[in-house]
Amino acid sequence: MSEDDNPTAAMLAIGDELLSGRTKDKNIGHLAEAMTLIGIGLKEVRIVADDEAAIVEAVNALRERYTYVFTSGGIGGTHDDITADSVSAAFGLPCIYNDEAMRRLAAHYERRGIDFNGSRQRMARMPEGASLIDNPVSTAPGFVIGNVHVMAGVPSIFEAMLDNVIPTLKGGAPLVSKIVECPFGEGDIAARLGEIQKAHPKTSIGSYPRFSAEGFRTQLVIRARAEADAEAAAADIRAMLEAMPGA
Amino acid sequence: MSEDDNPTAAMLAIGDELLSGRTKDKNIGHLAEAMTLIGIGLKEVRIVADDEAAIVEAVNALRERYTYVFTSGGIGGTHDDITADSVSAAFGLPCIYNDEAMRRLAAHYERRGIDFNGSRQRMARMPEGASLIDNPVSTAPGFVIGNVHVMAGVPSIFEAMLDNVIPTLKGGAPLVSKIVECPFGEGDIAARLGEIQKAHPKTSIGSYPRFSAEGFRTQLVIRARAEADAEAAAADIRAMLEAMPGA
Repeated sequence: MSEDDNPTAAMLAIGDELLSGRTKDKNIGHLAEAMTLIGIGLKEVRIVADDEAAIVEAVNALRERYTYVFTSGGIGGTHDDITADSVSAAFGLPCIYNDEAMRRLAAHYERRGIDFNGSRQRMARMPEGASLIDNPVSTAPGFVIGNVHVMAGVPSIFEAMLDNVIPTLKGGAPLVSKIVECPFGEGDIAARLGEIQKAHPKTSIGSYPRFSAEGFRTQLVIRARAEADAEAAAADIRAMLEAMPGA
Repeated sequence: MSEDDNPTAAMLAIGDELLSGRTKDKNIGHLAEAMTLIGIGLKEVRIVADDEAAIVEAVNALRERYTYVFTSGGIGGTHDDITADSVSAAFGLPCIYNDEAMRRLAAHYERRGIDFNGSRQRMARMPEGASLIDNPVSTAPGFVIGNVHVMAGVPSIFEAMLDNVIPTLKGGAPLVSKIVECPFGEGDIAARLGEIQKAHPKTSIGSYPRFSAEGFRTQLVIRARAEADAEAAAADIRAMLEAMPGA
């Protein structure tokens, strides 16, 4: 595929629990699918611990390099939720109590008859100048500062926040994707497939082997910006498979 | 938890399919659990595309910083499998056909009556001086160069390779982990929990909120090197919960 001039994205998943194996991340795959759908190229993902230096370094590395950065995790009200402070530090901004977030949280807890104490107020903290990302699940908002979108780690909330963020992003052309099932192992097709890839530079051809009771099979995935480009490569691949001995 | 003097690890998952959402990674969570079990601290994970520059940069960043690096993906025989070349480039080493890997693969394909063609021979390529990681599933080996362990992306093969790697690693003291289920939301306990964390610096206390039909609940996870440290913190947490209004 020729060099991408579409917007790019990176994700930073934050949390000790992801690195200890206690929690299996579900947000990376969800973001990946969402970005692909709207034509934004997810280029890199990092997972780091609840560690300010690690978060600051990753946020600054990624926000310089990609159009959009999305973070998950660490925006609750406990001592291990340090994402707001860390992102503020990455931007060199004070971490303040956002007025609108305070108003929303105060109203939320008042309706439920729950004390809006200091820990809960912590969830209104974010870098000065940030704008809010609505949280229809549990009120405590995410926030956007610069090109960095800070969202919750709980998957249902991450997904709801992302739904609110997506309309604000400048998407690119979505990728067209075609799948050709190949009843041979990779080793039978790799040389010819490499030639087909070279002949179709506007496509990206992925080859994904599987091992099953029926033996080796391979799924071939052709991605391109334009339907015609993907179809031309898929046609060459189908012709290759029909010409295989034993096909 | 006081500064970790145990070995550290990072993972680099390689593959366009992980970033497009086509494939949901399963290897990160598996590695995380395995490292926790043997007392090696997984500190960072990155996911990058099948892109040599991106792989080289990530390998070099991670191998300088952590005791062990583990990669997944991109070691098959097709044009999009560029991990061996990229890791060789990261180390400034030629990427050669490893004799022992060639011997194993040749024997494997001979037994199965399959042509050991150029594409299949590609799977024997690795940096000069690398040692092999056995692959009991499909023969094509992974490899170790320096502190970097290069393994397959297919989860069953990644797991089998990791089983072969683990006895070669110098593990640390495994973490003891205690779970206390908390029938309150994070906001009710955060302030006191932060004090307990400060009083138990040899532990790391994680707080993981859940939303369910019964309302807000929180799982508290205490990790420490020593059983006594974890238990002391857990006891303080239980006492806190018993003293809560409504408990």
